Amino acid sequence: MTTPLRLGIAGLGTVGTGVVKIVRQKAKLLAARTGRPIEISAVSARTRDKDRGVSVSGYDWEDDPVALATRDDVDVFVELMGGSDGPAKAATEAALDAGKDVVTANKAMLAMHGQALAEQAEAAGRVLRFEAAVAGGIPVIKALTEGLAGNEITRVMGVMNGTCNYILTRMQASGLPYDDVFEEANQLGYLEADPELDVGGIDAGHKLAILAAIAFGTQVDFNAVSLEGIQKITIEDIKQAADMGYRIKLLGVARMTGRGLEQRMSPCLVPKNSPLGQLEGGTNMVVLEGDAVEQIVLRGPGAGEGPTASAVMGDVMDIARGIRIPTFGLPAAQLSSPATACEAAPVPYYLRMALHDKPGALAKVATILGNAGVSIDRMRQYRHEADTAPVLIVTHKTAPSALAAALEALSQVDVVASAPVALRIESV
Amino acid sequence: MTTPLRLGIAGLGTVGTGVVKIVRQKAKLLAARTGRPIEISAVSARTRDKDRGVSVSGYDWEDDPVALATRDDVDVFVELMGGSDGPAKAATEAALDAGKDVVTANKAMLAMHGQALAEQAEAAGRVLRFEAAVAGGIPVIKALTEGLAGNEITRVMGVMNGTCNYILTRMQASGLPYDDVFEEANQLGYLEADPELDVGGIDAGHKLAILAAIAFGTQVDFNAVSLEGIQKITIEDIKQAADMGYRIKLLGVARMTGRGLEQRMSPCLVPKNSPLGQLEGGTNMVVLEGDAVEQIVLRGPGAGEGPTASAVMGDVMDIARGIRIPTFGLPAAQLSSPATACEAAPVPYYLRMALHDKPGALAKVATILGNAGVSIDRMRQYRHEADTAPVLIVTHKTAPSALAAALEALSQVDVVASAPVALRIESV
Repeated sequence: MTTPLRLGIAGLGTVGTGVVKIVRQKAKLLAARTGRPIEISAVSARTRDKDRGVSVSGYDWEDDPVALATRDDVDVFVELMGGSDGPAKAATEAALDAGKDVVTANKAMLAMHGQALAEQAEAAGRVLRFEAAVAGGIPVIKALTEGLAGNEITRVMGVMNGTCNYILTRMQASGLPYDDVFEEANQLGYLEADPELDVGGIDAGHKLAILAAIAFGTQVDFNAVSLEGIQKITIEDIKQAADMGYRIKLLGVARMTGRGLEQRMSPCLVPKNSPLGQLEGGTNMVVLEGDAVEQIVLRGPGAGEGPTASAVMGDVMDIARGIRIPTFGLPAAQLSSPATACEAAPVPYYLRMALHDKPGALAKVATILGNAGVSIDRMRQYRHEADTAPVLIVTHKTAPSALAAALEALSQVDVVASAPVALRIESV
Repeated sequence: MTTPLRLGIAGLGTVGTGVVKIVRQKAKLLAARTGRPIEISAVSARTRDKDRGVSVSGYDWEDDPVALATRDDVDVFVELMGGSDGPAKAATEAALDAGKDVVTANKAMLAMHGQALAEQAEAAGRVLRFEAAVAGGIPVIKALTEGLAGNEITRVMGVMNGTCNYILTRMQASGLPYDDVFEEANQLGYLEADPELDVGGIDAGHKLAILAAIAFGTQVDFNAVSLEGIQKITIEDIKQAADMGYRIKLLGVARMTGRGLEQRMSPCLVPKNSPLGQLEGGTNMVVLEGDAVEQIVLRGPGAGEGPTASAVMGDVMDIARGIRIPTFGLPAAQLSSPATACEAAPVPYYLRMALHDKPGALAKVATILGNAGVSIDRMRQYRHEADTAPVLIVTHKTAPSALAAALEALSQVDVVASAPVALRIESV
């Protein structure tokens, strides 16, 4: 046995507690697998006295995470506090500065400050690992950075917010409207304190930005992610999509196009028989596509004590084993400049609108779409409800700019009763 | 840039050719990702002059793979010849002996000689990697060995022979009998020269033995895998299973029980809405379950030039990056003794039999099952065909020994027209 690897853990919420449990309960197994004991030197959290289901009284306590991060008896600083800035960032920077490796589950920090932190880690000769930041227990960062390293990645997709997938699949199963299911999810404690982080797609957008940087060798740039939440998804959309063989998912898509890196997090239609379409409840799924490997699909729990702690421990054990890879898979200086948001690739769209019951209404819509260059694949008009008639259209592949022009023109005619809903249909 | 990593590639079939293409066409990307150039020094194959779609004339040629494996200008011996013994084993041993790291796609060699090779590699201080040996392009060895290293693995399952899954899903979709679909697969070139390797479950059994060794820290022991092929699966079984909400898959299952390591490769029923049940065609799927991570499902192409070459390159690039892990995730001396085949865990069973049209026939069957301790969950008797009536039974959880006793007793009564078919129902 060589010298132990000594951890300093900041943040003893669900994930931190899970990590402490694994280190305590599986010491022998971890040491056998890595060739060295893994120990905890000290911990830090907001509240010292609290029943966590596991005792931390055997470890030194630090009130200040920065003090923890820079202790002489800490080799790896494990940052599980969260928050893109504030103490998490300060302590991470202090740890790297003090020559510690860092393992974090902090997607917001990575998405906002990943490039600067990667540069700092490299300058210090330390590693910064974050498997737990994306898709919980799924070892997707490792798959992308190492397992598929021989590939040029062509597309990355994922359902990476369990709460949104819970809401959408619950709407599908129950027939209940968005507001009711949102309230249900809220009462079940599934939503972040600021629900916009979930249903607005921000949390999932952070994860997508991280995956995109690794997949395409670009500097992580959350601001270039085109974000759309699920708040506008109605139960009618869910039902109509199902009727046409689709499911609606909050889907992240990143791909390199001729015009730059496309990064979108938005509700999309996917075929209901595809792995993404079949994904129910809070489970996460990431689809990785490469020129050699074709398509790999990874599915697993996106949150929770055990799964997230499993991901943190994967990183810790890699460090114990001497695995040292650049933060985003390439040296930070070689990551290409921040991706400017580029127009998304043309895809088929699902359009839903209500038309006033006037002669020639449908013809007007068809003409407007045709003039904008939007070609119709399938159309359904339903029986009139009061004085409006729901119309569903699936288009052929359409450039977003053409679609936007069509939507703008539709908003100015008198036959369309309300702003049309437009959702991308992603081929999977 | 540090010194290049120099490969010697033995075997230029589909996979070898794929590896050569990646090394040639993506030299810059590979070097950026690993920090050093990856080059090919020499190659070896049975036939020198052959159009492979990529030129190998720029590399030295060796007729003898052992000579290739021991060349001074080879750092990593890439073994893509196949075969559990013979030249593949001789060259692998020679390479390790000469201080080379080895990357192989050879499941048979690993399943039969994995322990000895792991010991040799460790004694020589070299690594032996084999991501491509299991489930083609899916980075499952890496997920299990590294990503989930913080877990005690509780169960590993997989559909890992694409040909069998093609046959079973094609039977399901077409309603054609086994023999017809087998012949179809044969004409499409999907079958090994010895089809028993596929349909007898041997190829998939090799893969399971490798995964089980890593998952449970045991010496790889293919002989302890309980093997059952798909040859006995009839179209009736497929249809009846579907009627009851199941699909039939050639499923590998490994789990640690109180009585030792259970390793089985056999046709099983799985719920049709589960990820395994939904898997169609030649795609592979591996399910990894751990005490912390719960369940991870990995899906991807199980064969083919690109996917398999992707897996080989993942290993090569790990070596280039300095990642060095014991062959089966633990030092070879710490792997526990060969697993003796242990009785499989109790599961529900699907039973199909034809009863002669005699009064009391069904009662006799029910009595025999009851006497053997086999409890019936569901039973269906169908309309008589000629003078026999098909009967389907789903049992409650039953120990294999109890089931065997029941089957033995059933074979001795005059009401059962032919030997009953019994298939395990695996919960997923």
